Amino acid sequence: MINVATIKNAREQINNWKKQGLTIGLVPTMGFLHKGHISLIEKAKMENDRVVVSIFLNPIQFSPNEDYEKYPKDIKKDVQMCENAKTDMVFCPTVSEMYQTKNLAYINVNELSNNLCGAKRQGHFKGVCTVVAKLFNILTPNKAYFGQKDAQQLILIKKMAEDLNFNIEIVACPIVREKDGLAMSSRNSYLSKEQRQSAIILYKSLEKAKTLLESGQQNADIIIKEITKEINKEPLARIDYVEIVDQTNLQKVNEINMQVIVALAVFIGKVRLIDNIFFKEINR
Amino acid sequence: MINVATIKNAREQINNWKKQGLTIGLVPTMGFLHKGHISLIEKAKMENDRVVVSIFLNPIQFSPNEDYEKYPKDIKKDVQMCENAKTDMVFCPTVSEMYQTKNLAYINVNELSNNLCGAKRQGHFKGVCTVVAKLFNILTPNKAYFGQKDAQQLILIKKMAEDLNFNIEIVACPIVREKDGLAMSSRNSYLSKEQRQSAIILYKSLEKAKTLLESGQQNADIIIKEITKEINKEPLARIDYVEIVDQTNLQKVNEINMQVIVALAVFIGKVRLIDNIFFKEINR
Repeated sequence: MINVATIKNAREQINNWKKQGLTIGLVPTMGFLHKGHISLIEKAKMENDRVVVSIFLNPIQFSPNEDYEKYPKDIKKDVQMCENAKTDMVFCPTVSEMYQTKNLAYINVNELSNNLCGAKRQGHFKGVCTVVAKLFNILTPNKAYFGQKDAQQLILIKKMAEDLNFNIEIVACPIVREKDGLAMSSRNSYLSKEQRQSAIILYKSLEKAKTLLESGQQNADIIIKEITKEINKEPLARIDYVEIVDQTNLQKVNEINMQVIVALAVFIGKVRLIDNIFFKEINR
Repeated sequence: MINVATIKNAREQINNWKKQGLTIGLVPTMGFLHKGHISLIEKAKMENDRVVVSIFLNPIQFSPNEDYEKYPKDIKKDVQMCENAKTDMVFCPTVSEMYQTKNLAYINVNELSNNLCGAKRQGHFKGVCTVVAKLFNILTPNKAYFGQKDAQQLILIKKMAEDLNFNIEIVACPIVREKDGLAMSSRNSYLSKEQRQSAIILYKSLEKAKTLLESGQQNADIIIKEITKEINKEPLARIDYVEIVDQTNLQKVNEINMQVIVALAVFIGKVRLIDNIFFKEINR
């Protein structure tokens, strides 16, 4: 596995592969990899000649009051996991390599970034879209892989790629869960043992919503109320948001007669976790 | 010369050339070409194996009260001029080809777009940067050519390309002028005979500024006052702005001890014209 830290070296390797007519899959990550990331790498391996994993904790997608400084890191383990998953190249740039001068150019995906996590995390998606565009331009993949756990991110990136004519297919990958249903996340490492137990409530409440949806319940308010009631049973949990939105435009829906996402963000203690289900899957 | 209207066909041709190892120069235009555009094509011809001219009147860089609807057009003449200048491909997409769904992704270059024309034309540079990024992603040139007449645009695009890691060299080309000094512009065609005469005042006032600068005058206010006095002598002229800014960050300067742009926008009747001089040239 090739391990590069500079844009120049990454480009040289990519150019080498392109000259040989090889296709490239990109898995962009912020490191502290888990089975969710590995599932993206495995899918990318199946669909491309070469797979690149970027490991970059992107400062511009964190607000000053967020967890950029204490975000979990273990680059040595990350690199080993990439190697085990038969990644062809890891790209691990420093912050100063990625932002060589003060960054002034930003990408906004209007409307799609105003609600859900976008309403709670000011500037977050501007930072996400900007760094993803940078990675796209540096690594010029044929396909790029994103998890459905970050549902709003996935839909924003798809729209960005479409609107700005990136010649890159955005591939959505299903959420990978722990045995008890908790969605894999680097932030799960923040949880104490007690909190880890409580965190199951996100999945449990979504399962309840799914049962209601499958039984034909079309009233979004009723489903949201049920989820809320379920989560409020858990003393360590505090709801940040529970919403049901249209998969195409992320706007709130009242009557569920289209493909929707049931999305929630819940604080378990100080740890903010997100989870969601796509009802009538996005890739039918 | 190849003439394509769709993104798909443009990409196919570009891919063909890339497979042969040929380099590509892009000259993005809004059509109604003049000698300024031709000078860009000629420079691109010298520096690349293949030259692509895009001709696309971009609606999203015009405000509702601006001249999008009446902007001069002569696509037949444009194509002929490109052919005469030995362009290899013209890319002339329709608006619906470039904006297939409602565009939500926009690129802002903060700080650089707040003053000069950016202060007068709300959303203009957002529209410019967005369409240029789209053209970069569709046509993937090695170099792209921009005129110094649109000085703020040039500096914004350079910063965007740098910040978003486009692997494209942005080449600045000098202003091409009529015999009497008027900077070439598609909008000159709006001028009546009398207005055309008056329009020389932009160049004349900049010449005055240049003389002062070369004589060692470092006080920006004094130079701006002289330019203003000069322009106000012309009854048909009304100043939109006269500013002296730092070439690197486009911020106003008081004491001229760095590379600057003396930039102005002047209405001649209802026709808004811009012009500028780079003092101590940007490409020394």
